[in-house]
Amino acid sequence: MPVCHWNPALIPICLVEPGKHHESATYLPRGTLVPLFRRQFQFTYTVSQQQQCNMDEAAPPSKKAAKKAEAKARKEALKVQRADARQAPSSAVELDDPAKGFYGQAPTTPIIFSSSAEDISLRNFSNRNVEGKTIILRAWLQTSRTQSAKMAFVKLREEGNWTIQGVVTATSEPPEQEPPIVSRPMVRWIAGINPESFVVVEAEVQRPIEPVKRCRVSNFELRITRCYLLAPAPAILGMTLAAANRPVVDFNDEAIGAKAGVREEEETDKEGPPAATPVQQAIAGIRMEMKHQFRSYLKARVFKEFEPPSLIGATSEGGSSVFRMRYFAQEAFLAQSPQFYKQFEIAGGRKRVFSIAPVFRAGNSNTSRHMTEFTGLDLEMEIRNDYSDVLYLLEGVLLYIFRQVHRIFKDEIELVRSVYRSSEILLPEPGQEAQQLLREEGPAEFRHVRDDDDMSTPQEKALGALVRQKFNTDFYVVDKFPETARPFYAKLDDTAAAGSAEGAVKVTNAFDMFLRGQEILSGGQRTNHPDELEARIRAKGIDPASPDIDGYVQVFRQVGVPPHGGGGIGLDRIVAWYLGLPSVHLAAYYPRTPRRLLP
Amino acid sequence: MPVCHWNPALIPICLVEPGKHHESATYLPRGTLVPLFRRQFQFTYTVSQQQQCNMDEAAPPSKKAAKKAEAKARKEALKVQRADARQAPSSAVELDDPAKGFYGQAPTTPIIFSSSAEDISLRNFSNRNVEGKTIILRAWLQTSRTQSAKMAFVKLREEGNWTIQGVVTATSEPPEQEPPIVSRPMVRWIAGINPESFVVVEAEVQRPIEPVKRCRVSNFELRITRCYLLAPAPAILGMTLAAANRPVVDFNDEAIGAKAGVREEEETDKEGPPAATPVQQAIAGIRMEMKHQFRSYLKARVFKEFEPPSLIGATSEGGSSVFRMRYFAQEAFLAQSPQFYKQFEIAGGRKRVFSIAPVFRAGNSNTSRHMTEFTGLDLEMEIRNDYSDVLYLLEGVLLYIFRQVHRIFKDEIELVRSVYRSSEILLPEPGQEAQQLLREEGPAEFRHVRDDDDMSTPQEKALGALVRQKFNTDFYVVDKFPETARPFYAKLDDTAAAGSAEGAVKVTNAFDMFLRGQEILSGGQRTNHPDELEARIRAKGIDPASPDIDGYVQVFRQVGVPPHGGGGIGLDRIVAWYLGLPSVHLAAYYPRTPRRLLP
Repeated sequence: MPVCHWNPALIPICLVEPGKHHESATYLPRGTLVPLFRRQFQFTYTVSQQQQCNMDEAAPPSKKAAKKAEAKARKEALKVQRADARQAPSSAVELDDPAKGFYGQAPTTPIIFSSSAEDISLRNFSNRNVEGKTIILRAWLQTSRTQSAKMAFVKLREEGNWTIQGVVTATSEPPEQEPPIVSRPMVRWIAGINPESFVVVEAEVQRPIEPVKRCRVSNFELRITRCYLLAPAPAILGMTLAAANRPVVDFNDEAIGAKAGVREEEETDKEGPPAATPVQQAIAGIRMEMKHQFRSYLKARVFKEFEPPSLIGATSEGGSSVFRMRYFAQEAFLAQSPQFYKQFEIAGGRKRVFSIAPVFRAGNSNTSRHMTEFTGLDLEMEIRNDYSDVLYLLEGVLLYIFRQVHRIFKDEIELVRSVYRSSEILLPEPGQEAQQLLREEGPAEFRHVRDDDDMSTPQEKALGALVRQKFNTDFYVVDKFPETARPFYAKLDDTAAAGSAEGAVKVTNAFDMFLRGQEILSGGQRTNHPDELEARIRAKGIDPASPDIDGYVQVFRQVGVPPHGGGGIGLDRIVAWYLGLPSVHLAAYYPRTPRRLLP
Repeated sequence: MPVCHWNPALIPICLVEPGKHHESATYLPRGTLVPLFRRQFQFTYTVSQQQQCNMDEAAPPSKKAAKKAEAKARKEALKVQRADARQAPSSAVELDDPAKGFYGQAPTTPIIFSSSAEDISLRNFSNRNVEGKTIILRAWLQTSRTQSAKMAFVKLREEGNWTIQGVVTATSEPPEQEPPIVSRPMVRWIAGINPESFVVVEAEVQRPIEPVKRCRVSNFELRITRCYLLAPAPAILGMTLAAANRPVVDFNDEAIGAKAGVREEEETDKEGPPAATPVQQAIAGIRMEMKHQFRSYLKARVFKEFEPPSLIGATSEGGSSVFRMRYFAQEAFLAQSPQFYKQFEIAGGRKRVFSIAPVFRAGNSNTSRHMTEFTGLDLEMEIRNDYSDVLYLLEGVLLYIFRQVHRIFKDEIELVRSVYRSSEILLPEPGQEAQQLLREEGPAEFRHVRDDDDMSTPQEKALGALVRQKFNTDFYVVDKFPETARPFYAKLDDTAAAGSAEGAVKVTNAFDMFLRGQEILSGGQRTNHPDELEARIRAKGIDPASPDIDGYVQVFRQVGVPPHGGGGIGLDRIVAWYLGLPSVHLAAYYPRTPRRLLP
């Protein structure tokens, strides 16, 4: 076990006190999922001691010394640069400069580059024969380092954390040189550009003396001959890349105030400007890939996409956690699920449908598993044999998503795991049981779980641990939920076997799927006969003639609706639990909680 | 000109009075975009005389007589069937029937079919060697016709209007026959099934004596040997396929009450059951294809998809048409566009992003161009040269969508045009001008349109007609909108040319795109320098320090934001205007208007 040299207690990543949003010089680095704004959130993000130890553990000790030395050297250079920058007229170009016109604020007229210069992205460097070519690159200037009055280095960054080293060297006797001319004032001006400014450079691609380890493009560097400032950043910036990549583990909204204003040691000792957060970009990439694979798996199986509405005129599944609003002369609600609409599509003559749409829950749940707005991946399908048609399809689509992402995003998953430590995900051979397993082999407090209980979150997690240990999988199904734990549209299991035992618990053809012990999907067969449906509604103590329910029931009276079933997957949850993230909030672009609506 | 034999005035397709939703026996056919529920909407859909004439015109006169005769014959057969059905114990199977077990209500246990029987969809008939095979088909029984006590015909329908004829013929001497046995009671039972019930049949695929013209699969028919009722339809159904395919042209909400209860002659003279509406399915297919092509065009150009939120904490673009709601201790709004969020992504270090998400407008606009919820196709990108980067990309993606849909959905477009008559769409060579063209060559009432006017809808339509006539295109761009007609984030045109003329109208690098004279896209370059942005905000009379605006402006102060621009496309509008539909409501799955929230 490596020793943890670090005693963190709680380190807020958000350094801004509530109400003081815009004065502070610190902010989260760009390229994160929530680009600039996280500092405004009513959250205090904290790093636990355990997590921090894990991070240290990830870095081999042999490299540490080298890093320290490097950091020291960079700090020295930074001092030089800053002293230099104070002298440099960073916004103005000297008038008698022979390199005038090759650098400066971008003109409003189009910039003229060399006719041979080619616009190219860093991501394409590996595919192209770029050595010796003159290129144009638009990028953020991430860091700069003054080597001497004649030479400076910059680190240029494009989207996706693609970085390259740029070198700018003054040509010895400017007046005798052919263009491009680089003058000492030009070197000073470039070195004085505020970090995180957006620039465009013209440069020749060359091989560095040795690979540039700090940059993603390490086998090339750019000899800069023109540099224009397209959009300047402010003079003072906060927070380092290292701090930004630290895991976020405490989402307790109540923590603000108590901890706000506490600064971490590393923060105040600014060694450089912020950079894109590759971890957040990796999560975003995996999220969009999961959505894409869901769609393509289903399209290949003749599912048709449809669009359910967000605004609805009746509450579909109980009124407690629904957002309400004035809607002209009436009241409107935000959809809690596309359940009824999926079924309308089946009743309307489509055999297999799916939707990808936002859904809304107004519950005041301030946990790492809840958001008020999230993305639902939903499907509904005709049943040909029995409800296991649906079960197998949902298992199939989830396993496909997980396996595809594992194949395509191997590196990104490792990157995420290096920050948010988690065990490698285990995918199944089929398992079974649930309450019984929990009762017989679970923790003592769950000895008395009944077969007709719906499971609580702690029970679900305990079950997840048991299943992992017993069946060697993180992904499993809990099937045949008791009738009491499911809404009225869940179809009762009316097979001979189900009805045989006297006093047996009534079960439904409904199931949940779990990943790492947390629910990611609810599914099952739906009641498609109107009389049975009405009986189920009455059994739940709901009046089938109430306006919210009547329209739904009538669909089944008007037409023969085939046997059908489906399920709903929370995209944010499968991203978060698949990656072992501590919160669904980290999986979303602009997470919404009871306390968070901005940005 | 063909003579219009038909004097319709206004024929409501919706026959249900408000408040009396579920008693009526009429409903819209299944397979429509809004499957069963349209009858509940607070709309009266009407058919204009002109549209009706167009429909008649579409049918060659020579076929008319044949159709009439056929309709008469079918009506006779229907009488026989109904009389028969009244005698038939349609829900019970006769006990001493030798065919017992080969038909009836579906058992709760899995149905046993012949071991050689293969599950196959009608859409796959053309790709497979099906003749002589025994198949299982799950479908709606659309119509039935009793030929004699020994023989009946049924029309079976799957999704996408795939239909096939089924024949059921009693085997002559049941006891001597090998299975499968078809008895007379079985023939009677099948012929007595209520239209639009969902059934499963086992059948042998055979060639019909002559092609079955009424069915989409015309070169095969099914000799039914088993038939089970999976979900019965009610005994009484309304509305024919012909009525359902009639165009909807009057979306005037005020018309309810005045016209409700009026029945069209054909309605009461029910000649058969309803069927899927292929026109609506074609529109749905084209809609999803447009979405798909938008995504794939942009992904191929290194755009990254992101998800903007629906719930927001500040009104982004003015408060007049925004939905508000209680959100725990604060107030929340529904997003009117992802504008700010697209720009946050650019500021956050992504060079090209797009989103496909619902947007909401609370304006009380009861027109055929407005909905309160619609799907926005949005993109934002770094600008490398000037704002025409954005212009060309948006033109490119729209033309690509239109051309792809034209290529893939040729038949479906013709089908839609046969009902909603429109001229074939003309796609451009580039045109230009706008207010000037309207002033000089437009109708007299627009002689005095000024260069700094934003155009009204009638003006836009007049311009569309002029452009079509002059430049031979239905798709064109109106560029360089005056500063007064654009929001603060639109970038002023600050090129030398723009500033030269004294007293010239200040213009922006912003544009709209039009299809058939109606706006489908707003786009342009955005102001990316914070001082310029603040000045623009002030010039619009808005306080840059107001909470709604301040967070936005600060983004541009915190980091160098590259020059960028983008645009937003209304998916519902491009579907509707591309197809020449009379209303965007016809392009949506579950359209939302100030008066319509259900289903």
